[in-house]
Amino acid sequence: MRLTLADLAARCDLELAGTAAAAITGVCGLSDDLPDCISFIINRDQVAAAARSRIPAFVTRPDALIPGKHNLLHQHPEIAICRVAAMFAPVAYTPSTLLAANASIAASAQLGADVIVGPGVVIGERVVIGARTRLLPGSIVLDDVRIGADCLLYPRVVVREQCQLGDRVIIQPGAVIGGDGFGFVTDAAGNPIKVPQVGRVIIGDDVELGANSTIDRARFTDTVIGRGTKIDNLVIVAHNVRIGENCLIAAQCGIAGSSRLGDRVRLGGQVGVIGHVAIGDDVVVLAQSLVTKDLAQPGTYAGTPAMPARAWRAAVARFRRAGRSRGC
Amino acid sequence: MRLTLADLAARCDLELAGTAAAAITGVCGLSDDLPDCISFIINRDQVAAAARSRIPAFVTRPDALIPGKHNLLHQHPEIAICRVAAMFAPVAYTPSTLLAANASIAASAQLGADVIVGPGVVIGERVVIGARTRLLPGSIVLDDVRIGADCLLYPRVVVREQCQLGDRVIIQPGAVIGGDGFGFVTDAAGNPIKVPQVGRVIIGDDVELGANSTIDRARFTDTVIGRGTKIDNLVIVAHNVRIGENCLIAAQCGIAGSSRLGDRVRLGGQVGVIGHVAIGDDVVVLAQSLVTKDLAQPGTYAGTPAMPARAWRAAVARFRRAGRSRGC
Amino acid sequence: MRLTLADLAARCDLELAGTAAAAITGVCGLSDDLPDCISFIINRDQVAAAARSRIPAFVTRPDALIPGKHNLLHQHPEIAICRVAAMFAPVAYTPSTLLAANASIAASAQLGADVIVGPGVVIGERVVIGARTRLLPGSIVLDDVRIGADCLLYPRVVVREQCQLGDRVIIQPGAVIGGDGFGFVTDAAGNPIKVPQVGRVIIGDDVELGANSTIDRARFTDTVIGRGTKIDNLVIVAHNVRIGENCLIAAQCGIAGSSRLGDRVRLGGQVGVIGHVAIGDDVVVLAQSLVTKDLAQPGTYAGTPAMPARAWRAAVARFRRAGRSRGC
Repeated sequence: MRLTLADLAARCDLELAGTAAAAITGVCGLSDDLPDCISFIINRDQVAAAARSRIPAFVTRPDALIPGKHNLLHQHPEIAICRVAAMFAPVAYTPSTLLAANASIAASAQLGADVIVGPGVVIGERVVIGARTRLLPGSIVLDDVRIGADCLLYPRVVVREQCQLGDRVIIQPGAVIGGDGFGFVTDAAGNPIKVPQVGRVIIGDDVELGANSTIDRARFTDTVIGRGTKIDNLVIVAHNVRIGENCLIAAQCGIAGSSRLGDRVRLGGQVGVIGHVAIGDDVVVLAQSLVTKDLAQPGTYAGTPAMPARAWRAAVARFRRAGRSRGC
Repeated sequence: MRLTLADLAARCDLELAGTAAAAITGVCGLSDDLPDCISFIINRDQVAAAARSRIPAFVTRPDALIPGKHNLLHQHPEIAICRVAAMFAPVAYTPSTLLAANASIAASAQLGADVIVGPGVVIGERVVIGARTRLLPGSIVLDDVRIGADCLLYPRVVVREQCQLGDRVIIQPGAVIGGDGFGFVTDAAGNPIKVPQVGRVIIGDDVELGANSTIDRARFTDTVIGRGTKIDNLVIVAHNVRIGENCLIAAQCGIAGSSRLGDRVRLGGQVGVIGHVAIGDDVVVLAQSLVTKDLAQPGTYAGTPAMPARAWRAAVARFRRAGRSRGC
Repeated sequence: MRLTLADLAARCDLELAGTAAAAITGVCGLSDDLPDCISFIINRDQVAAAARSRIPAFVTRPDALIPGKHNLLHQHPEIAICRVAAMFAPVAYTPSTLLAANASIAASAQLGADVIVGPGVVIGERVVIGARTRLLPGSIVLDDVRIGADCLLYPRVVVREQCQLGDRVIIQPGAVIGGDGFGFVTDAAGNPIKVPQVGRVIIGDDVELGANSTIDRARFTDTVIGRGTKIDNLVIVAHNVRIGENCLIAAQCGIAGSSRLGDRVRLGGQVGVIGHVAIGDDVVVLAQSLVTKDLAQPGTYAGTPAMPARAWRAAVARFRRAGRSRGC
């Protein structure tokens, strides 16, 4: 694909300070340093490095012009570059028809306008799917599920019975929504007895869920993922968890049963949250930490168990000194 | 769904101390406080909170009657509520026929009475499946697998060649049984050479396996999961591991090659067990710990590496004090 | 299956010092001690234990003959046993035709000689697949993917658009290649905005990828897995990561965005690597550690955050003593 800068500026609402007829074939990061691409910088500190690169064109702020380059101006280059990159997004899958011949769609399912159903997809009884939602090949949606409009389910997603997704939800391949929560009681003989998990998963608008992540259905009521929250790959959200809006949950986090997260919570990779704790708005937890108690105050936490990050760094420094003095 | 208390008491073997004609529409936890549901309490400490709630009916012990509520009596309310909840379990998938038209079932496969095979399911040569077992859409069972009676495989489960499952096994969506173990030797040039993984996975009766978990086949012999053991989501059980009976393995645990777990072992979330260690009966390991040595004695362990939990808590307290004195 | 030792010696290039007509039915480890199998030992220290076992035949070095057993001689028994084991490898799936009738193969896809495509497989537009590559049931390959020759994709693998695999690549069930990287910018209102992930995943020759692992596509350019690298189950490799050759990455590792690994790097299970760090050639990181800074020097590292393993062990010893003195 090849776009002129004039075309790109028009389509992405950028002001061009460069040659209209110059063309690029892709987008790259500054360190990728590719000669036919456009890149971006977000502040004036990067101007010199951008000028030294082989990259011919940049999205940049009006107060950070790059000498010798084609400049495309925007007040927020990190947001504008998203629109630019979208111009170069590859097609994922080209359906030959809206509804694939070998999909299995229950007669009672209701599909909105322009819904795409790929080969091998299974849609259960009484499922409702909103307009323009795309189910790529191999996804399976069991009975009584509701999926909103403009969603994108990549291949091999499972949505189990009764679960609900809002609008514009994106689910990466292999994710599982609505698996049984992990709940057992012990009988008199010491055998674990399964507690039926009869609740649902409710996912808000604009949520994204990563590859092979799993969101368990509630024991009796609802597991809830709030509007705008983004969850990375291989995460488990256990039964009855409630996550607020616009959270960012990095890969391999595990949030145990009945815990609550507020809005704009950020969890680094491999963070664990034990069951029945509450994490307040705007809390940040660093990678591989374990939250064992309520974290009510906004701030950054770290460690196993999690503590304020500044105290953790001091404790780690002392731990490391102990190692150096005796081990080396 | 709507059930009268008389009906519920009869079906779930409960003694009713309340209005027979009163009806409920679901089940909830005490903290969910829903006005049309039944809930449960397990001891007298919860009587006052139950009485204050909006919930109209409770399963409770005969010595813990809740004033102003419909009481359904049982010596073990936490077990009785499982039968109650099962009354409200939603249907997962309604098959239009026992064997879906677009399933691929090898001619040499033997299916017991009333086996259900969903759309897109693939069953390999010489597979044997017991009576009433259900394979929901998209599950794939390779050659020479044996699956017992009354099992439930949710969508998109994979069972690779030669593996064996007992009776009443439940596999959540996306789990993989029998992937190759991670075994390599290094040749003279430093390249890793694959050790063929020619063993099997043997899963006992009444085992449950969580969404997207993976149980690797043995190098030469068998990886074994004992009867009654329950494994949560995103767990890896590596090649040649042997797990005893009635263990509870929480989400994202990793058990490395050839390790042994006794009976009734409980691992918290994100626990690691390195290869070739033995964990005895009734050992409990707290979340995010790493077991690096044999743990022969029953008890609770924690930390990386794991140590008795009481010692770990004391060591953590000292670590935290170091942080506070210098970091805050 | 039953093989005479003469037959086995001839097929596996071993020198037989034993009875040519003796037969075995499988392969086992020394501790498995099975009476009809062949096993192996790698040095003279194991001769006595082998002699005491019930195992009738061993692959061993010419300088480590086992008295009373059939000896099959090779300078590198740990490599020779791989060939022996391969003789006993079970068939995974018996296709009734090369291309299953209910696979969905785009008209523009190009399949090499003797490619096997199982039931339920979906192959998108312009996909190119090399000779003898096998796609087992339920795998899904989106538009413009290139897969080399002699690859083996087990059931339910997903390869998203534009990604490329070399020759002899093995992908265990449920793995996802090319899911979107986890990239968001925040708009003025505090909402996360998705950064389109328009890059690819490039996987070299002889790579193996474990069950339910996920390799994310790059933001703009390429995520790269080098030749010969082996990745275990439930691993995430994030966008723009570059991994060198012949690395061994154990289960549940997480490598965050844009990090770089050299050649022959070994990561234990559950290791985390934060974003934008560089790990040099021949670095070993022990299980459950977190790499937070560049590790340029070859050597063994451990801890959260990772430090030289010797210093970590000393620091842990001190931490444990603190626990013992106060906790027990």
